Amino acid sequence: MSTTFLGLGEMGRALAATTSAAGEPVTVWNRSAGRAHPMAGVAVADSVPEALSGGGAIVVCLFDHASVHEVLDPVASALPGRTLINLTTTTPDEARELAARYDATYLQGAIMAVPAMIGGPASQLFYSGSAAAYERHRALLDRWGSSTYFGADAGLASVYDMAMLTGMYTMIGGFLQGAAMLAAEGVSASAFTARQAPFLAAMAGQLAGYAATVDDRDYAGPGQQSLRFTDAALGALRRASVEQGVGADVLAPVHELVRRQIDAGFGDHGTARLYESLRSTR
Amino acid sequence: MSTTFLGLGEMGRALAATTSAAGEPVTVWNRSAGRAHPMAGVAVADSVPEALSGGGAIVVCLFDHASVHEVLDPVASALPGRTLINLTTTTPDEARELAARYDATYLQGAIMAVPAMIGGPASQLFYSGSAAAYERHRALLDRWGSSTYFGADAGLASVYDMAMLTGMYTMIGGFLQGAAMLAAEGVSASAFTARQAPFLAAMAGQLAGYAATVDDRDYAGPGQQSLRFTDAALGALRRASVEQGVGADVLAPVHELVRRQIDAGFGDHGTARLYESLRSTR
Ligand SMILES: NC(=O)c1ccc[n+]([C@@H]2O[C@H](COP(=O)([O-])OP(=O)(O)OC[C@H]3O[C@@H](n4cnc5c(N)ncnc54)[C@H](OP(=O)(O)O)[C@@H]3O)[C@@H](O)[C@H]2O)c1
Ligand SMILES: NC(=O)c1ccc[n+]([C@@H]2O[C@H](COP(=O)([O-])OP(=O)(O)OC[C@H]3O[C@@H](n4cnc5c(N)ncnc54)[C@H](OP(=O)(O)O)[C@@H]3O)[C@@H](O)[C@H]2O)c1
Repeated sequence: MSTTFLGLGEMGRALAATTSAAGEPVTVWNRSAGRAHPMAGVAVADSVPEALSGGGAIVVCLFDHASVHEVLDPVASALPGRTLINLTTTTPDEARELAARYDATYLQGAIMAVPAMIGGPASQLFYSGSAAAYERHRALLDRWGSSTYFGADAGLASVYDMAMLTGMYTMIGGFLQGAAMLAAEGVSASAFTARQAPFLAAMAGQLAGYAATVDDRDYAGPGQQSLRFTDAALGALRRASVEQGVGADVLAPVHELVRRQIDAGFGDHGTARLYESLRSTR
Repeated sequence: MSTTFLGLGEMGRALAATTSAAGEPVTVWNRSAGRAHPMAGVAVADSVPEALSGGGAIVVCLFDHASVHEVLDPVASALPGRTLINLTTTTPDEARELAARYDATYLQGAIMAVPAMIGGPASQLFYSGSAAAYERHRALLDRWGSSTYFGADAGLASVYDMAMLTGMYTMIGGFLQGAAMLAAEGVSASAFTARQAPFLAAMAGQLAGYAATVDDRDYAGPGQQSLRFTDAALGALRRASVEQGVGADVLAPVHELVRRQIDAGFGDHGTARLYESLRSTR
């Protein structure tokens, strides 16, 4: 039985190569034929049906949700009885839609790593969907990184993935705004980062305090920085950004969320209360 | 000679208490008299002129730039020959304005710590302005935390401060959005943070790569995640946020900055190129 890999982009290639390097039979397919060729010890299929003929798990790693449909819809009749492991980034509802659509045992994965990390100690993958598929293919999954299973709802891995990436991308956006503010004084981004990176790492360590406050809805408890204080700080940051000739696009919405809570009468409450501006309306 | 502290809010109090605990003579003044009283071994002045009579350095830690004017403008004629250490958060231009306005030796500080950290090993303070004041009062400054001097331009400490806080507040905003997305699945903020905090700390360690790319303007170099890839990821994050009933306010502008570079024809360039959407127009 050969494991099928559909999609040999940067990530699909890293997954297939790691699996093949462990001595497992691997069959690959990629839309653009050129991409598959330079892989040693791997069977290259010319079509998706041919790629599926190996009979093992089907690992999908394509660009997005739409490309999964494009590739799998035409072969949907070949999927009953098979295990589908989708590692394409999808939203929670998109994962649920795929799980419901195909008559296969469906496991959704979310990769918390870049391709170069696959198979290494820092690589983490989140899974949700079929518990049976997770258990049966655990050896395969664990070759790519450490595996965590969140539950039978196929959307759960994506919710974790996307919640975590939201923090990452906003941090990167804020970091680049800060770098631009200092660049206006002739300071290099690297010199800035030497200070910023350890500071952000230390501040990440403080998030547990915010989380405890949010979980307890204890916004009036002692020792918190008030929304009024944070409003003043964010106001200064926005003015400073303008002074430096840098757009405050990334920071402004955080300030607006703070203002919303102050306008609602909570200026003396702790800053974690800005969570209430973001709470799910579901 | 007694060091004067104007402002006994949370931070001013921590600064004055740490100084006094080290055995140095301290005179304090606060607008609301009640706040000054329970401090042992400290002279409490009833007015600003009285507080200045100790003759030592004048440490100012008030709410904002406007309150510094309110407190110091009436006593401006008493400032020539004195050293003014302003630890009130100000924008770079506000610091420059204060340095120019008062006929005193002016040192601007920026406190990278919360009050409870003052005097402890994790406390960092940034300074700029008079190098002579920085050298002369180094023993005083070093009691509060580790001191770094950035140069004679009084605004520099604030630029560093505000560039660093921009990363912090956007990270906090993104973190709380992520917590809200998972809360819609019944996951506590604390459970989320146990995964998110180490992930963000690890990602902070990756920022040096972005910085090197930005410094070299090497957006077309190998091994970068393309703007097109990041566009797809951010699009999914925004859709996921909507699915979870959570506003994507904090994340959306990062996506817009990415789109701006793609619209300019750079979809194949690395994601660090979103810096070009933020670059100073100064
Ligand atoms: N790279 C990362 O750091 C990373 C990290 C975590 C998760 N992921 C996820 O992994 C997935 C793949 O990412 P990647 O980095 O490998 O992307 P990539 O290098 O851009 O590769 C995209 C792949 O999708 C294929 N594809 C796109 N549209 C298609 C369509 N309509 N029909 C058939 N095939 C199509 C491409 O085939 P062609 O060669 O024919 O264009 C290629 O194999 C994405 O969902 C991504 O979010 C990636
Ligand atoms: N707390 C922190 O974590 C932290 C961290 C870094 C930097 N800082 C900076 O330190 C400064 C002080 O912060 P804080 O935490 O001590 O704030 P705080 O607890 O709110 O205290 C504010 C102080 O400013 C005084 N004040 C406000 N408006 C005034 C006015 N118009 N005239 C005279 N006095 C006035 C208040 O006097 P009353 O008692 O009469 O109201 C009080 O002493 C701020 O610029 C802040 O950004 C604070």
